[in-house]
Amino acid sequence: MFKKYDVIVVGAGHAGCEAAAAAGNLGSSVLLITMNMGTIAQMSCNPAMGGVAKGQIVREIDAMGGYSGIVTDKSMLQFRMLNLSKGPAMWSPRAQTDRMRFAEEWRLALEGVKNVDFWQDTVKEVVVKDSRVMGVVTSLGIEIQAEAVVLTNGTFLNGLIHIGEKKFGGGRTAEKSSTGLTEQLVELGFESGRMKTGTPPRIDGRSLDYSKMEEQWGDEEGGRFSYTNVDIPEKQRCCWITYTNAEVHETLKEGFEKSPMFTGRIKGLGPRYCPSIEDKINRFAERERHQIFVEPEGWDTVEIYVNGFSTSLPEDVQYKALRLIPGFENAKMFRPGYAIEYDFFPPTQLNLTLETKLVANLFFAGQINGTTGYEEAASQGLIAGINAHQKVNDKHELIMKRTESYIGVLIDDLVTKGTEEPYRMFTSRAEHRLLLRQDNADVRLSPIGHELGLISDDRLALVQAKVKDSDGIVKYLKTKSIEPTEINQILNDLGTSPITQNVKLFQILSRPQVSFNDIRKADPVLDELLSKYNIETVEQAEIKVKYESYFEKEMEIVNKMKRMEDQEINPEFDYQKLVSLSKEAREKLLKIKPRTLGQASRISGVSPSDISVLMVHMSK
Amino acid sequence: MFKKYDVIVVGAGHAGCEAAAAAGNLGSSVLLITMNMGTIAQMSCNPAMGGVAKGQIVREIDAMGGYSGIVTDKSMLQFRMLNLSKGPAMWSPRAQTDRMRFAEEWRLALEGVKNVDFWQDTVKEVVVKDSRVMGVVTSLGIEIQAEAVVLTNGTFLNGLIHIGEKKFGGGRTAEKSSTGLTEQLVELGFESGRMKTGTPPRIDGRSLDYSKMEEQWGDEEGGRFSYTNVDIPEKQRCCWITYTNAEVHETLKEGFEKSPMFTGRIKGLGPRYCPSIEDKINRFAERERHQIFVEPEGWDTVEIYVNGFSTSLPEDVQYKALRLIPGFENAKMFRPGYAIEYDFFPPTQLNLTLETKLVANLFFAGQINGTTGYEEAASQGLIAGINAHQKVNDKHELIMKRTESYIGVLIDDLVTKGTEEPYRMFTSRAEHRLLLRQDNADVRLSPIGHELGLISDDRLALVQAKVKDSDGIVKYLKTKSIEPTEINQILNDLGTSPITQNVKLFQILSRPQVSFNDIRKADPVLDELLSKYNIETVEQAEIKVKYESYFEKEMEIVNKMKRMEDQEINPEFDYQKLVSLSKEAREKLLKIKPRTLGQASRISGVSPSDISVLMVHMSK
Repeated sequence: MFKKYDVIVVGAGHAGCEAAAAAGNLGSSVLLITMNMGTIAQMSCNPAMGGVAKGQIVREIDAMGGYSGIVTDKSMLQFRMLNLSKGPAMWSPRAQTDRMRFAEEWRLALEGVKNVDFWQDTVKEVVVKDSRVMGVVTSLGIEIQAEAVVLTNGTFLNGLIHIGEKKFGGGRTAEKSSTGLTEQLVELGFESGRMKTGTPPRIDGRSLDYSKMEEQWGDEEGGRFSYTNVDIPEKQRCCWITYTNAEVHETLKEGFEKSPMFTGRIKGLGPRYCPSIEDKINRFAERERHQIFVEPEGWDTVEIYVNGFSTSLPEDVQYKALRLIPGFENAKMFRPGYAIEYDFFPPTQLNLTLETKLVANLFFAGQINGTTGYEEAASQGLIAGINAHQKVNDKHELIMKRTESYIGVLIDDLVTKGTEEPYRMFTSRAEHRLLLRQDNADVRLSPIGHELGLISDDRLALVQAKVKDSDGIVKYLKTKSIEPTEINQILNDLGTSPITQNVKLFQILSRPQVSFNDIRKADPVLDELLSKYNIETVEQAEIKVKYESYFEKEMEIVNKMKRMEDQEINPEFDYQKLVSLSKEAREKLLKIKPRTLGQASRISGVSPSDISVLMVHMSK
Repeated sequence: MFKKYDVIVVGAGHAGCEAAAAAGNLGSSVLLITMNMGTIAQMSCNPAMGGVAKGQIVREIDAMGGYSGIVTDKSMLQFRMLNLSKGPAMWSPRAQTDRMRFAEEWRLALEGVKNVDFWQDTVKEVVVKDSRVMGVVTSLGIEIQAEAVVLTNGTFLNGLIHIGEKKFGGGRTAEKSSTGLTEQLVELGFESGRMKTGTPPRIDGRSLDYSKMEEQWGDEEGGRFSYTNVDIPEKQRCCWITYTNAEVHETLKEGFEKSPMFTGRIKGLGPRYCPSIEDKINRFAERERHQIFVEPEGWDTVEIYVNGFSTSLPEDVQYKALRLIPGFENAKMFRPGYAIEYDFFPPTQLNLTLETKLVANLFFAGQINGTTGYEEAASQGLIAGINAHQKVNDKHELIMKRTESYIGVLIDDLVTKGTEEPYRMFTSRAEHRLLLRQDNADVRLSPIGHELGLISDDRLALVQAKVKDSDGIVKYLKTKSIEPTEINQILNDLGTSPITQNVKLFQILSRPQVSFNDIRKADPVLDELLSKYNIETVEQAEIKVKYESYFEKEMEIVNKMKRMEDQEINPEFDYQKLVSLSKEAREKLLKIKPRTLGQASRISGVSPSDISVLMVHMSK
């Protein structure tokens, strides 16, 4: 009934959708298997994409030819560039989206990839022969063959939902869980673990008093994730901010004795940086209030997402406490918040391609690897989809570097260090974050996407033009001097000291108070030059001018470390014979099988002296 | 956590949505409980509304202030008036819809009813005290109180899905079933039964060759269900027609030994007039081919609904047979067809208000009553919602008459005769179908909707104007004579005999060949008169002219029967003491407790002589 596919992708969340699209666009025949054709690309948690570090990931996905940015742009309710008051490495795009539109746009995008077929079913096992995956078996008992399989099961593997003392099976509320697959993978030799995440109650927006909350609009001029200039809506929808208080906390505490988290019924660890409200008031008892971010679920629906109020306390406690929040005095719930426990597979069992070490051509992406977050999942899906295609076609592996992308940081962290709790990306996880900015993800990664075949020649040409043109602007600024009489009035108005002799425009613009818009008036040639280019190019030039010295220093460090970072280690390397290694290092190195000395150095338990031993040995 | 509601509606399909909207709009506080807020108003089967007799029902719902017509109009892909070549009583509107838009528009409509609250949960039991419903208990263990409860559980009660020899629980594919409620109702004394329905496989439209099929467009000038002039799309999408053949049938037969229907695994009876393809080739072995109607699922999606190919044969047999249909040679499935068995409650346990006889203030609507079809379900929901509100507020019952609506025919049939197999509406079920037309549903029913408070004064005024204006047009036609010289050329062109002396325009228009557009040119006064009114008014006048004599005869019959039809019987009437009644009649009358002599006469087992006995007794 089914042909043999190149790649089967199991699951159609953020990871599965990106994996299917990437492999399909590269030319693989792909079968995307989902439990429900009606729930492709559901946003299980809040209706938003991006944010600090996560926004950069979406930009990186877009630069590589993924769809998350495009789909977000098409379904966005509002867009904000976060952290604009900080340096450009911290600027992070975030968008509120219409939940239904998001899912629909993803589905239409996938339907637009001609190599992607769809099948509604649940995968019960993977077919493995001689340590190589051969296909899957579904709950209908159908065996479907494939050269490679990407598992993106999200929270569905033995998913168990908790609300207070009640629990029931499910991959999301009102959806079935997926059983059998974990057990089979464990039988094959995989180690599995248990994690937990949660979601807040959904609220009837008609019952809220927004006059008691602070409005939170997006950026006036809008913005987008994709470098492809997707049409974005002209309007935007408002979000709101309100706060919990001591009364709310006291009420929530009444439910603690029935909390599945505090009574030990939930075994899995939850996301540290996206904690439940009961976690927050428990861990930060000194905090008098916590922020609640009130997000609309779509353009027209009244449904509201109460960001910051994730909880698995009994529903009546949720309800009572919610109503003590300003603006929520008459709040009506559509459904309670809940916690969900699910199986994951410690990601140290993966190669940097996201292929499992144990079973060839079997890839894992998303929450199954112990991550949390749509963006983290989507980026893994993209890389797994690409590598599945590459593997099937005997093409080179794609290993993302820590120095070139957050995606590289993410995967290297997962595979090298593993994770005990849901892993979320932060800018602080990237040692070279100055280089990993949302403004240059296209510059960093489009060449990779182009070389693979996911980015068209035209698109690459645009990126190259952006680099060339912004460099041209910088060059002009470095050569063009300006006289005090031409600029001092402007500098004075901006509150920065006047110049006493001719100075290069570059130096003027380097001043933090000064922007292009201020100085272009003073120099007609510059004004004309800037008017030739789009806003991204001009912004790129401005960032280069203002932060050039920082970037150069960072690049020096990168280059210094590059020798170690890039020094490859044979995966078959026999650590046993290196007796000078510590016992722990030997064990960990054998388990992780690092691909480079750099990766080896990041393994916890591998000390600098162990690395020295390796370096000495390898230089022989 | 919950206030006491006036009305709780369980289930948010076509029946539940109409029930919640009606009760809410009438002023009741309503809680709509659905298993999944994301699947409100799903079209479980094909993406279309209306059709013969069913289209009339949608018009009736609209005329009473329901939403099915409005939602259909907003989400339609194409509109066709079926049976235009037959008399106007047979004209039946039908629309293809965008499945996602339909669900979304319904949800937004419900969110727009301020008295309707939502709760995502599953109802496990109804709370009953002293034979009166007091509320419900949900799977979260929450008891929610209400004055009245409307159950619209669709196919979810102990839903069991069959594909070949495989079966699994579910209310629809990929959705959970609802357990516990049937058992509790049976414990309360209700009789339950088992029915079956089915759905075809969903297909990837990209894999079809439409050049081998016949195109099927909607009416060029469009059309709509609602009398409220909802904006409808300017474009339309095409459907296609193709046929099965002997090869297809032979292939399907290979699966018969694994068919859950033919091997007896399915106990419930399926819809006779919407049979599975295996049923059709089994029952109509002489037919060489069956029509397949290929329906797009939405504006943009490639998903295709294969109307006419409902099946529960093994998925590989479905697949193999499908590919033998012209245009389907390379068809790829998204999911297989399946059969579903579910619990229903024989509707003879209901009053004509759809309240159960056993438990006061408990109402049933939709498939739980043994019906099939979106329209049948929606109309019951509307009536149940209205009557729940009326009951709670000590207002008069709404009992729809057979002489005034298909809805009346439907409910009277269900309650009086019961049903052994899924009940579907046909024009032939209505003895006065000449009067129950799609063109006059507003005239028939808007006064009822207005009196209840579901139809505004303005809307009623529009209907009254339509009646008055169309009568005015008819009156003019009856008074105005036309000379042979003015009209004979036109009559000649139309192929109908010329007149030899002055004749009233009424008589000219009565001729089947002649339409308003033909004769308005001949009479400037008529032309001006017609141009003052909208198309519905003009059409109404034309129908009156052409069919007046038929309608009058029908009304005579109605009036003659009215005395018997309307003669009320006390529900407490003691049939036991009427020894001249046959034993069977006595039993049935005691069970059904007919409200009128007319209803009594339609009970199977009650003979004309039994009715005579009753009449004689009652006239005393």
